[in-house]
Amino acid sequence: MDPATGVRRIPLRPHEMRKAVTSVEDMFVLAHLGIPRINASDWHLGIDGMVGRVASWSLDDLNARPKRTVEAVHQCCGNPQEPKVPTRRVSNVVWGGVALDELLRDVDVDPSARYLWSYGCDHGHIAGAHVDAYVKDLPLDRVAQGDVLVAYELNGAPLPAEHGFPARLVVPGYYGTNSVKWLSRLHLAADRPTSVFTTRLYNDVVETADGRLFHRPVWEIAPESVLVSPAPGAILARGQPTQVWGWGWSFRPAALVEVSLDGGASYRAASLEPRCGWAWQRFSLLWRPNVPGKIALRVRAADEDGNVQPDNGARNALHTVHVTVE
Amino acid sequence: MDPATGVRRIPLRPHEMRKAVTSVEDMFVLAHLGIPRINASDWHLGIDGMVGRVASWSLDDLNARPKRTVEAVHQCCGNPQEPKVPTRRVSNVVWGGVALDELLRDVDVDPSARYLWSYGCDHGHIAGAHVDAYVKDLPLDRVAQGDVLVAYELNGAPLPAEHGFPARLVVPGYYGTNSVKWLSRLHLAADRPTSVFTTRLYNDVVETADGRLFHRPVWEIAPESVLVSPAPGAILARGQPTQVWGWGWSFRPAALVEVSLDGGASYRAASLEPRCGWAWQRFSLLWRPNVPGKIALRVRAADEDGNVQPDNGARNALHTVHVTVE
Repeated sequence: MDPATGVRRIPLRPHEMRKAVTSVEDMFVLAHLGIPRINASDWHLGIDGMVGRVASWSLDDLNARPKRTVEAVHQCCGNPQEPKVPTRRVSNVVWGGVALDELLRDVDVDPSARYLWSYGCDHGHIAGAHVDAYVKDLPLDRVAQGDVLVAYELNGAPLPAEHGFPARLVVPGYYGTNSVKWLSRLHLAADRPTSVFTTRLYNDVVETADGRLFHRPVWEIAPESVLVSPAPGAILARGQPTQVWGWGWSFRPAALVEVSLDGGASYRAASLEPRCGWAWQRFSLLWRPNVPGKIALRVRAADEDGNVQPDNGARNALHTVHVTVE
Repeated sequence: MDPATGVRRIPLRPHEMRKAVTSVEDMFVLAHLGIPRINASDWHLGIDGMVGRVASWSLDDLNARPKRTVEAVHQCCGNPQEPKVPTRRVSNVVWGGVALDELLRDVDVDPSARYLWSYGCDHGHIAGAHVDAYVKDLPLDRVAQGDVLVAYELNGAPLPAEHGFPARLVVPGYYGTNSVKWLSRLHLAADRPTSVFTTRLYNDVVETADGRLFHRPVWEIAPESVLVSPAPGAILARGQPTQVWGWGWSFRPAALVEVSLDGGASYRAASLEPRCGWAWQRFSLLWRPNVPGKIALRVRAADEDGNVQPDNGARNALHTVHVTVE
């Protein structure tokens, strides 16, 4: 591990997310436990648990299989100890690798298995505990959709160490925490694991309409949007037409992005490009400000099921940008 | 104009086209007449001909309209005096600009108009003639599809001078020659123009099934594919699995890409990703070579209408790569 402590690099703020496909050097890097430096020839990915036979794949084994590529939004869900704080750490990149679904055909999965547990090579201290490995899980139903990858490429090049070399999980549409880096082991089970990363951390407490509380894993990305332009603090000329634009995304495709030009008093639908694969979707609205003063621009996205970004108190709370019209 | 003579820069060969979205610095640059250096504040795009009223737009006027983005394959059709020679000068990039269709709503187009003529700011000598401007045309039916752009952005940044600053036409699915750079004037007409670029050059002579000859403008991109990997001259180990992959594209989506592992004696269908917008489509096939010797790998694409890349004698003749199995 080098370093063997947490790594946190957030190069882009929302108004800097101008490119449709984020450059690798512009991606956020977050590693709780540090960055393993792995010699590819020593590496294997093992699989065990509810399988007819255990297996192990080398990087050559993965490279020898048909490569799938997926363009997908990649978002950090934020600090798991502050699940209601929006962080807007997000990228949109192209992953290349093997479909996990196809790998599972090698091992004769027990039909009673319901969860895939995934282990990283990283280990160390977090939240007062020592952990042998970073461990996450996801439902096998999600894997069956065929687009979960064991990825070894990022934007057409081998994964850099900080993004999971030699191979990582990529779960399109799920928050980044589920896309385990430096993948070392897969395990099939009927139940969820008891890792600190799947129990104490990364479970939201959600209240149902009738007041009951339950824990929901931080899996599917909630509807969200960011304003790229204008940038915070922009000074706009009165009467001058201005493009208000940015990105919207969600586990389901975003169906609507609305822009408020009056601090949230009213909203107008932006034009929204359709989703391509799992990529984020561009929205834009033409604005000709006609009243001088300070203005809070707000954007909010909704998915096809009508789930909308909340005003506040959630990791996907809507994005506000303050500008001045002169 | 700087330079005021032809510019030709072809940085990528097919095996170097590894990225899904081509970097601007990796795009081919071809300019028959040189590169105009334009001061944006002096620039206007005029429109005339069969319109209810003439109009003129500044760059600010374009920026003030809703921005559309289109990811599209961008291909040079080759030397117009050698229309049957494949050149494989191709990129895949993201354009941003105004939908031409929306601009035309400003000018009340005469319903009898059938062609859009487009003029560049570049001028000079070509093929023994002096030309006042680079001129191309396209059918208004194509414009009505809504995705022809007057583009001012390339991969999220302003157009560089060599790609048409401050604004250019982008006709997705048409060969690059139709996407006029340094756009200065649009003209609507009932007939095609008599420019050297639309009459003597860039018209293919095509023979119909019953033996008649006619001229077909070099507009829609014919089905094509390139092999990215393995690279020419690659030495492969016998029994070692190898990813054979590349890109396929066409005016219509590519429906099939086939790979020959025996110099064209037989073909196998590769797995082919669906088209997203007007982008090129990735294909791949796993190959485990089992006979040592020199091998000619060939790839050919077909579109949804069954049009197939020919073996030879055409700009889109199939791509062959020679490798050695040891």
